[in-house]
Amino acid sequence: MRIDIKEAAEFLRENNNYLILMHASPDGDTLGCGTALCGALQRLGKNAKAVCPDEIPHKFDYLFDACENQDFEPETVICVDVADTKLLGDMKELGDKAKLCIDHHVSNVEYAEKTLLDPQSAAACEIICEVIKELGISFDAALANSIYTGAATDTGCFKFSNTTPKTHRIAAEMIEHGADFVNINYVMFDLKTPGRLELEQQAMKTIRYYANGHIAVIFAPFSMISSIEGIDSDDIGLLASMPRKIQGVDIGICVKEKKKDEFKVSIRSSEKIDCAKIAKQFGGGGHERASGCSFYGTTIDYAAAKVVEESEEALRKAGII
Amino acid sequence: MRIDIKEAAEFLRENNNYLILMHASPDGDTLGCGTALCGALQRLGKNAKAVCPDEIPHKFDYLFDACENQDFEPETVICVDVADTKLLGDMKELGDKAKLCIDHHVSNVEYAEKTLLDPQSAAACEIICEVIKELGISFDAALANSIYTGAATDTGCFKFSNTTPKTHRIAAEMIEHGADFVNINYVMFDLKTPGRLELEQQAMKTIRYYANGHIAVIFAPFSMISSIEGIDSDDIGLLASMPRKIQGVDIGICVKEKKKDEFKVSIRSSEKIDCAKIAKQFGGGGHERASGCSFYGTTIDYAAAKVVEESEEALRKAGII
Repeated sequence: MRIDIKEAAEFLRENNNYLILMHASPDGDTLGCGTALCGALQRLGKNAKAVCPDEIPHKFDYLFDACENQDFEPETVICVDVADTKLLGDMKELGDKAKLCIDHHVSNVEYAEKTLLDPQSAAACEIICEVIKELGISFDAALANSIYTGAATDTGCFKFSNTTPKTHRIAAEMIEHGADFVNINYVMFDLKTPGRLELEQQAMKTIRYYANGHIAVIFAPFSMISSIEGIDSDDIGLLASMPRKIQGVDIGICVKEKKKDEFKVSIRSSEKIDCAKIAKQFGGGGHERASGCSFYGTTIDYAAAKVVEESEEALRKAGII
Repeated sequence: MRIDIKEAAEFLRENNNYLILMHASPDGDTLGCGTALCGALQRLGKNAKAVCPDEIPHKFDYLFDACENQDFEPETVICVDVADTKLLGDMKELGDKAKLCIDHHVSNVEYAEKTLLDPQSAAACEIICEVIKELGISFDAALANSIYTGAATDTGCFKFSNTTPKTHRIAAEMIEHGADFVNINYVMFDLKTPGRLELEQQAMKTIRYYANGHIAVIFAPFSMISSIEGIDSDDIGLLASMPRKIQGVDIGICVKEKKKDEFKVSIRSSEKIDCAKIAKQFGGGGHERASGCSFYGTTIDYAAAKVVEESEEALRKAGII
């Protein structure tokens, strides 16, 4: 059942002993939602804890200043920023008992008893922010940090096309409430580990251009990934956006060897090209500007060549080459 | 004489034939101010043109959609985002005749007859935005692009500590008026020329760490800079911020050889260190987190060694090493 902000606030006032589930491979939005909602419920006099099926990267530690560790028997399950219980890893069964889900994914499968869904929100944290206001809780710096983090990270620091005037107005309010945005943005967007730096450098050395520079491809073979110390999936994931940043490139491709004979191809495109269509040719999918597909039992060069071929076709259809 | 928004609007309504001066080495803020104010005055039925003593990089071309080319005899000089007429290059003499200056630099020397100054504004565009509202001009997408560009570029995409709630609220409004923020941010922050990419790669290869990784130094000797095609001062300037982004680095140093025997050292620091004090030891200056100094008639290694020595001293004083 779909509910609105007021009904969600009412539900939260009426129940107690909340277990808030955040999705696997946690990001700034799900963690911002979980910690902010948990802290708000505790300020309301409720018992609450926010948990995640996966280990939480240390860079997010500060978010947990928004709430306290409480020991109690969980009773009411809430999922935040979780479109489907499949995204809950080992906690899927708990998710299947969800009484409430607060989310912004248009793909939400409405698995919870009640769903507060707003696909217009760039971040689920924007919805949590409104729920907290409806509950009459005033923001302190810790709550503001959590909400700001979700809004900033899900919009690539207000750069992505999902950013709305509301995203900026929420950021403004959170800064007024003391959000430490300078350090948050430094850690989320600018800080690089020596491992990430090395990976970026090595991957960029592999760059190949096609179609008169409209296509750029970088490669991350398993031998490269395994030779660099201290990198994680986050670091490897960020390679995907690099080739498209080069001037003149309309289609940026990154081919990663996940394990022997398994290749993940990430595609990023300018507004002139719908790269979801390219990925679809190989059983993949995604969005217009960011998509991906996988190849098995082949070589890294074959995977790249196939995607380049399809990309050239897309450039031709768009009249670019 | 200091004036307020209302008085500035009154002045603009009363006069005509405006020559708007933007500072040399133009950035997104001065160009955003100049083009937005010029467009607004034209919509008010006035004659206006915005000029800059230096060539304007092509990436800013879109800003000039906010105003039209008009042919008339200039009468009233206005300076935007110009703290001192020394920053006007060949147009200094014109600047000395300024009737009005609209600026946000606390260092403004108040050279104009009337000065509208707000050092609380992250960008001078924020002040221009209020002036335009006071004039009763409604924003279209082109005006919104100009104001948004100033606000975004002067805050490093809302990351720098000068960002305020007002900056975000203005961004929100400009998006509502149609600012093409996705493309603006792509061009201003993400797009890299092949030359910039090559320069970054070569410079990062020179990295040396000191003080247990709390200091990182990169080098850009003249031989490197001159060997890479298609780079400009903007590309070289951006090297300064790279070493500080590495995890664990409190002081990031970049030593550039501007010409034979002339070295420019840029220093960036975490909140634990005041790097203006380090630069001051060598006759330089700047801000707490971003400073610089120059060395002459020496070697690149000597310049680096001296700054590293002083940086180690600063780390010791701060109890970091």
